[in-house]
Amino acid sequence: MTGQRHLHEEVERLQSRLLGMAGIAEEMVRLAVEALQQRDAAAAERVIDRDEAVDAAEMEIDDLAISLLALQQPMARDLRFITMAMKISNDLERVGDHAVNIAEEVKFILESPPFPVLPEIDEMSRVATGMLADALDSFVRLDSRLARAVCQRDDGVDELRDNIFRVLLTHMMEDPRRISGGMDMVLVSRNLERIADLATNVAEDVVFLVEGRSIKHGASASV
Amino acid sequence: MTGQRHLHEEVERLQSRLLGMAGIAEEMVRLAVEALQQRDAAAAERVIDRDEAVDAAEMEIDDLAISLLALQQPMARDLRFITMAMKISNDLERVGDHAVNIAEEVKFILESPPFPVLPEIDEMSRVATGMLADALDSFVRLDSRLARAVCQRDDGVDELRDNIFRVLLTHMMEDPRRISGGMDMVLVSRNLERIADLATNVAEDVVFLVEGRSIKHGASASV
Repeated sequence: MTGQRHLHEEVERLQSRLLGMAGIAEEMVRLAVEALQQRDAAAAERVIDRDEAVDAAEMEIDDLAISLLALQQPMARDLRFITMAMKISNDLERVGDHAVNIAEEVKFILESPPFPVLPEIDEMSRVATGMLADALDSFVRLDSRLARAVCQRDDGVDELRDNIFRVLLTHMMEDPRRISGGMDMVLVSRNLERIADLATNVAEDVVFLVEGRSIKHGASASV
Repeated sequence: MTGQRHLHEEVERLQSRLLGMAGIAEEMVRLAVEALQQRDAAAAERVIDRDEAVDAAEMEIDDLAISLLALQQPMARDLRFITMAMKISNDLERVGDHAVNIAEEVKFILESPPFPVLPEIDEMSRVATGMLADALDSFVRLDSRLARAVCQRDDGVDELRDNIFRVLLTHMMEDPRRISGGMDMVLVSRNLERIADLATNVAEDVVFLVEGRSIKHGASASV
């Protein structure tokens, strides 16, 4: 087997580990939002338990990337690809953290009287996990057009975030007993917004990787 | 000049750029909290304007790291150090984002009647920027004892976050006109908590770099 061939296979292995990690992180987000909708404390606990798997995946990916850098001495695009994989694993680990944060909020929410889950929260969770999946896809396929499309969806998420804030504010003003639950729900929405933001971060890195120029913009007003 | 000597100098250059980036990020956090305390819209704008400098620094550090990997083919600890510098630049870029988020919240807060800035917010900002400075210091000095001390301070931040939430909730329950300002202030505290979390992330990476074992724990319940 030539060294080049071997490097190619190792890069593919790195890709597949990264996709595996992304799958766990996405699943955690989906499960956390399901726990919120179903008022399911056991599901929330399952999300929290999965955090270790994400942390372990990050370390495994970093070790693999570092050993590739040490043993294969890749050049040019392979080198950028491998180092970017390490940055993405960092972002995915944070996605897992946000899913855990949502699950922790769910535990607080279950202590309060039932509070309606806004359809915008569902929508936001759907958009954020979709953006994450597409961002990873754009990385694997080195598809900067798809990556740019991910970045564009971030504005829609910001709009959802603002709508949620306004609606919850109105609920809280009308009925002070809803203040605590409303605040928890705002915090859930901010975690979802942050996940979309991390997906955008990954997509921006992909555009830079493929096109060699940056499209990083300022942070949006999220937590 | 020997290649080894040259590598050493380049690694030092990478370090110094990273410290420069950390300085900008810390300064942004401090200025954002000052803008909150002084109700100073111009200061908030200055924070938002500085975001570009952080984004540019991240790219410069990544380019430097990648060229070191390509041209110097460093091994063992240098290799880990350089790749970790890229992960840390990613975290610092997010710290800058959180400072921008606080500055954006300040702009909302200025639209509402004056709302008292809790002393716990000051304290949290002080602790979070201190953790960040120490985490970077532990990286540069490869001091895992200092890094571990940073991680331990994260619990104190969580306590401050919970106190702030409780106090603001009480304010909001007592006077519904305070709901909007109170929510903004909760979001500020969550951004500060997240900055402490990023400092902890850096410190955990340093422990791994120096001691070769992970002390990553689950996410704390923050946004």
